[in-house]
Amino acid sequence: MIKTAVLGYGTIGSGVVEILDKNRDVIAKQAGQEVELKYVLDLRDFPDSPVADKIVHDFQIIEEDKEVKIVVETMGGLNPAYPFVKACLLAGKHVVTSNKALVAAYGTELLAIAREKQVNFFFEASVGGGIPIIRPFYRCLMGERIEEITGILNGTTNFILTKMDREGETFENALKEAQNLGYAERNPEADVEGHDTCRKIAILTAMATGREVNYEDIYTEGMTRITDIDFKYAEKMGTSIKLLGTSRMKNGKVTAFVAPVMIQKNHPLYSVSDVFNGIMVRGNMLGVSMFYGSGAGKLPTASAVVSDIIEAAQNLKRNVAIGWSSEKQPIEPMDKARFCYFVRVAGSYRNKEQDIKQAFGDAEVIELYGLDEFAVLTSEMSEEELKAAATAYDRKEQGRSDFGIKQIIRGVL
Amino acid sequence: MIKTAVLGYGTIGSGVVEILDKNRDVIAKQAGQEVELKYVLDLRDFPDSPVADKIVHDFQIIEEDKEVKIVVETMGGLNPAYPFVKACLLAGKHVVTSNKALVAAYGTELLAIAREKQVNFFFEASVGGGIPIIRPFYRCLMGERIEEITGILNGTTNFILTKMDREGETFENALKEAQNLGYAERNPEADVEGHDTCRKIAILTAMATGREVNYEDIYTEGMTRITDIDFKYAEKMGTSIKLLGTSRMKNGKVTAFVAPVMIQKNHPLYSVSDVFNGIMVRGNMLGVSMFYGSGAGKLPTASAVVSDIIEAAQNLKRNVAIGWSSEKQPIEPMDKARFCYFVRVAGSYRNKEQDIKQAFGDAEVIELYGLDEFAVLTSEMSEEELKAAATAYDRKEQGRSDFGIKQIIRGVL
Repeated sequence: MIKTAVLGYGTIGSGVVEILDKNRDVIAKQAGQEVELKYVLDLRDFPDSPVADKIVHDFQIIEEDKEVKIVVETMGGLNPAYPFVKACLLAGKHVVTSNKALVAAYGTELLAIAREKQVNFFFEASVGGGIPIIRPFYRCLMGERIEEITGILNGTTNFILTKMDREGETFENALKEAQNLGYAERNPEADVEGHDTCRKIAILTAMATGREVNYEDIYTEGMTRITDIDFKYAEKMGTSIKLLGTSRMKNGKVTAFVAPVMIQKNHPLYSVSDVFNGIMVRGNMLGVSMFYGSGAGKLPTASAVVSDIIEAAQNLKRNVAIGWSSEKQPIEPMDKARFCYFVRVAGSYRNKEQDIKQAFGDAEVIELYGLDEFAVLTSEMSEEELKAAATAYDRKEQGRSDFGIKQIIRGVL
Repeated sequence: MIKTAVLGYGTIGSGVVEILDKNRDVIAKQAGQEVELKYVLDLRDFPDSPVADKIVHDFQIIEEDKEVKIVVETMGGLNPAYPFVKACLLAGKHVVTSNKALVAAYGTELLAIAREKQVNFFFEASVGGGIPIIRPFYRCLMGERIEEITGILNGTTNFILTKMDREGETFENALKEAQNLGYAERNPEADVEGHDTCRKIAILTAMATGREVNYEDIYTEGMTRITDIDFKYAEKMGTSIKLLGTSRMKNGKVTAFVAPVMIQKNHPLYSVSDVFNGIMVRGNMLGVSMFYGSGAGKLPTASAVVSDIIEAAQNLKRNVAIGWSSEKQPIEPMDKARFCYFVRVAGSYRNKEQDIKQAFGDAEVIELYGLDEFAVLTSEMSEEELKAAATAYDRKEQGRSDFGIKQIIRGVL
C-alpha cells in the first residue's frame, strides 16, 4: 500500500479524492498496489465530508511523515504551492500537480530537484485538463521531431467564442453567460487576455524542445477585441475564430504566440467547440495528430492527476526522464512570424481599391451587405510586413472621412 | 548502441528504415542509445536502396544473432509473420509489429511469451496508424474505468464515405476513386466489409478490458449497402454516416460491433473525414476524449513503430505490463445492443402512417422531395425490438404494391 496526501481540498483536490475512492480497484491494479489517502491539507475543516478525519492544517505533518510517498498539489497559485512542492521533493517525495502557474514559473527548478532526488514531478493535469497531452510527448511521439503545437487550451474563451460564432452574441453577453454558468471567473482577465493559454503553450513548448521556455517571451494577445461583426465575416468565409496558443519549431528556431486566429473548416481544431480543448501536434514524420477532450472540470482534471499518481507509484524508485533542462530556449521575435491577415477597413471597397492594392497587394475581398466597410484576406506575409502595409495604407488614406483599419485578425492558410 | 532487424521491406518497413535514419539524433536521445539497423529480411533484393548491404533472405540469421535485441515485423499477414515473431520472442528478443491481423489472432499467446521471457511485444502501429492509441490505455488513462471506445479505424472506407457525403458520389464511383488514388486495394473486401475495423476494435477492447477478445465474436457489417440516397437524408438531417467500430463496457458486460452508423454533428467523430482516423474513448471520470490523426500511410505508421522501438530500448531488461491475459472476455449478443434506427420505407408517409406508428411507435419522419419513399428515425430500442418492429410492419403491409423497408441504419442518440 502506498500513502498519499492531497494539498488543497478545492474542486480538483476533492475530485482526486473521489476518483481514488470510486476507481480504487482499477488504480490498485495499475499502480501495482493500493493507493491510500492519508492526509488532506486545507485551511478549512470539512466535518461532513469523507475526508473529515484526514484534514490537517499544518503542512509540516505531511512533509515529515515518511510514510507519505506521493503528494498531490491542487491548491493553485504560487504561494504556498511553490514552497510546499519544493519541500516535498527535497524530502524525497514524488509530487503530482495540476498547477500550470507553478509549472510555468518554477518547472525547471522543480524538475531538477526531482532528478537530483530520484523522485518524480508530474504535471499532466496542468495543460488540457483530462486530455493526455504531457505524457504523449515522452511516451508516444518519442521518435518525432515536433514541428508545431497548436492548441485551444482554454475552455472559458472557447465557450465564449463558440457562443459568438453560433448565436451571433456580442463578447460582453457571451462572457456574462459564461460567468453565470460558472465557466468564467468574476474577474475573467487570466482567461480572456490569454495569460492562461500562454502558460500552457509555454509548458508544451518546453516539453517539445527539452529546454526551458520563459512564458514572458511569448507574444500574448487576448480575445476581447473580437466582435460579433468579425464572426459575420467568418460565417461568410466559412471560417471560425479561435484563441490559439501556438509554437512552431524549425531548424532549432522557435516561434510562439497566443492570439485569436481565423481558421478554415478543414483545420483539425475547427470543430473543437464549447468548453472543450484540442491540441494539434505536427511531427516531421507523423504529420498532424490531435488530442481532444475536456480541458477543465473537476473529474476530467482529477483523472489526469490520478494517472500521474499511478505513474509515480509505478516508478517509486526512479526518476522518469521527462520535462526539460535548465538550458534556455530562445523565442524568435514575433515580427518574423508569418500569417495571412484578415483586415477590416472602413468605407467601400470601390473607393479604396487602389490604396488597398498598393498597400496589401493582391488580396481576397469580402463584402457584407449593409455595412459601410469591407474586409480583405491577404496572402502570407510577416508581422513586420503587415505593419508596414497597414502604415502605408493609413498614410495614403489620411484626411479622408471614412478613414481607417478597423480590425486585423491573423489567419492560417 | 542497440541493434535491430526489420522483417519485410514494404511500405511500413521502408518507412521505419527512413525514420531511423532521418530522426537518428532524436531517437538516440529518447532511447538512451543509438539504434542501429543490422538486417532487413525480404525475399527481394534492393540493390539501389540504402539497405542493399543489410538485406538477408534467411530468417535464421536474425533469429540466431544475439546482437539483435529488437525485431520489427512489418510483413503483414499471418504466415510467416506469426512463426517468425514467436521465434524472436522465444529467442529473448523484443518484437514490435504493425500487423493487426497478427495481434488480433495471436496477441494473447505472443504477449504471454513476452512476459515469460521478460521481453516486450509492442503493437502501437496495429491500430490507428500514427495515432497514439494503444499506449494511452496503459500510459495515460490508467485511473479510468473505460466505458466506451468508438473509432473510425479504417481510412479507406472513411475516404469513400466522405466522398459520398460531400460530393453525392455513389459507393461504386467513390470506391473506384479510392482505388485510383491507391487508398483502396483492387480487392477491397477487408476494408469495405469491415474486417479490418473488426480486428482493430477487438485489439482496443482487449486493451481496455485486460482480457482476450475473439474478433470473431464481434458483429461485423460492412458499408457496401450504404447509398447516395442515404446521404441525401443525412444531409437533410444534418448527420453523417461513418463506419464505426465500437465497444461498450458496463458492469463487466461488453457489447461490440462494426457497422455503418448515423451520427450527429456534435459527435466528436463527425468531423473526422477523408483518410483520417479518430478514436473516441469514454472513461467513467474523464468523460469523452478523442485521438485523431493519420490512420495509415507509410511515415505515420512507421512513426508509431519507431515509438515502440524506443520504448523497447528503454525497457531492455523488463517486461512492461501491457495487453491482456488469456482469460476470455465474453461479448454480449448483438440482439441486446440498443440504438435509434434510421429506417427508409417505400411509399408515401401519408399512406403508411398508421402501420409505421403501430410498428415503430413515435418516430421522427423525414421526407425528401421527389422520392417515392420516406424515412423515420426511431427512439432508442434494442436490435431485437427493431427486428420485431420491422417484421410487424412487413406483415401489415403485405400485399401492397409499394411495399417494404428499403434500408435500416443504426444511429446514436
